Amino acid sequence: MRLRNIEGSIEAVEEHRCVVNDPKTYRGRWNTLFGNTHPIEIEIGMGKGDFIIENALRYPEKNFIGIEKFSAVLYRATEKIDMREELPNLVFLRFDAIDIHEVFGKDEIQKIYLNFSDPWPKDRWAKRRLTYHKYLEKYAMFLDKEGSLEFKTDNNALFEFSLEEIRHSQFQLVEMTRDLHRSDYKPDNIMTEYETRFLKQNKKINYMKLIYK
Amino acid sequence: MRLRNIEGSIEAVEEHRCVVNDPKTYRGRWNTLFGNTHPIEIEIGMGKGDFIIENALRYPEKNFIGIEKFSAVLYRATEKIDMREELPNLVFLRFDAIDIHEVFGKDEIQKIYLNFSDPWPKDRWAKRRLTYHKYLEKYAMFLDKEGSLEFKTDNNALFEFSLEEIRHSQFQLVEMTRDLHRSDYKPDNIMTEYETRFLKQNKKINYMKLIYK
Repeated sequence: MRLRNIEGSIEAVEEHRCVVNDPKTYRGRWNTLFGNTHPIEIEIGMGKGDFIIENALRYPEKNFIGIEKFSAVLYRATEKIDMREELPNLVFLRFDAIDIHEVFGKDEIQKIYLNFSDPWPKDRWAKRRLTYHKYLEKYAMFLDKEGSLEFKTDNNALFEFSLEEIRHSQFQLVEMTRDLHRSDYKPDNIMTEYETRFLKQNKKINYMKLIYK
Repeated sequence: MRLRNIEGSIEAVEEHRCVVNDPKTYRGRWNTLFGNTHPIEIEIGMGKGDFIIENALRYPEKNFIGIEKFSAVLYRATEKIDMREELPNLVFLRFDAIDIHEVFGKDEIQKIYLNFSDPWPKDRWAKRRLTYHKYLEKYAMFLDKEGSLEFKTDNNALFEFSLEEIRHSQFQLVEMTRDLHRSDYKPDNIMTEYETRFLKQNKKINYMKLIYK
């Protein structure tokens, strides 16, 4: 996503009622924040938030956490929240996913979504990709043993890289399609901003679902 | 499948109106046998034929060829045909798949189905498995460039072996699920005899679809 600096976005995000500013303090007790023991699902790199907001609306019996490292982007998501009634089952966090295992405790998360993550196309950037095996190891530190990870991308190189990384991880591939919208695979698919745009361009969307081996 | 010898089955199969006894003579001109240029789909190891017969009934605008090496098994399929009106878009062949590239010509087949193929569980039998890479090479000799291969099995070891073999072939995985009947993947699934039985036993069915790279 191209980033435009939005003046005052850092302050606006920090003060927003949906944003939790000290996420590490909730590690292992996110349920106390939500005030219930419903399953918690997270989106890493939520962008402008369409996907996670739609999930929170559709599934009031689950809790959702949207994570985004850029204030200017997260700001757009908070604006969307301002246009509607409060969603008690949704919060936003602003931090870099490299620290994610310090934010969530063992078995705390039921589902991880990665949607159209940055492909970091140069080889020397491979370690920054959110499906790099070191990231998968971090996810395994807090994803519930019965949990799953779903990943969508239009980027074939990133998808194929991810298939390789999984081979060296605790996870196994249980579902995949190279063309989500033209296959017979019809998950309860909630589209992101990117997905809507790519579909209009007739781009294929890759999809995979992982569980523990 | 446990084989019971059925007395006279070899002769009965050879004389059956649905069975083509000299398949190699039709190589490259199967369309002349069907009398049209509709796409041709084959099932290798069709067993008692439920899957291919149901396909032929459901898709009159396609031609189907069921292949089975055991007369006693193929005999059961011919019995099913005898109980209904003739299907002009279906024939059966009795031969061992090892010769399959001598039976079909270049680009002649649109789709290959492998359903619950023999897992040949011992390591020294790996070469007999119908997804062994040498078999995949044979299939590529007659599968149309726009064609595809679909494979279903309840056998996890065979499925995982097949995923490895594909890596060293001209094919790429474009769809897969480890649990066809409980996933969101809903192809126009026609069940085989095995599949019906396994489902009743709550066994998971693995599914994959391949196209050329």
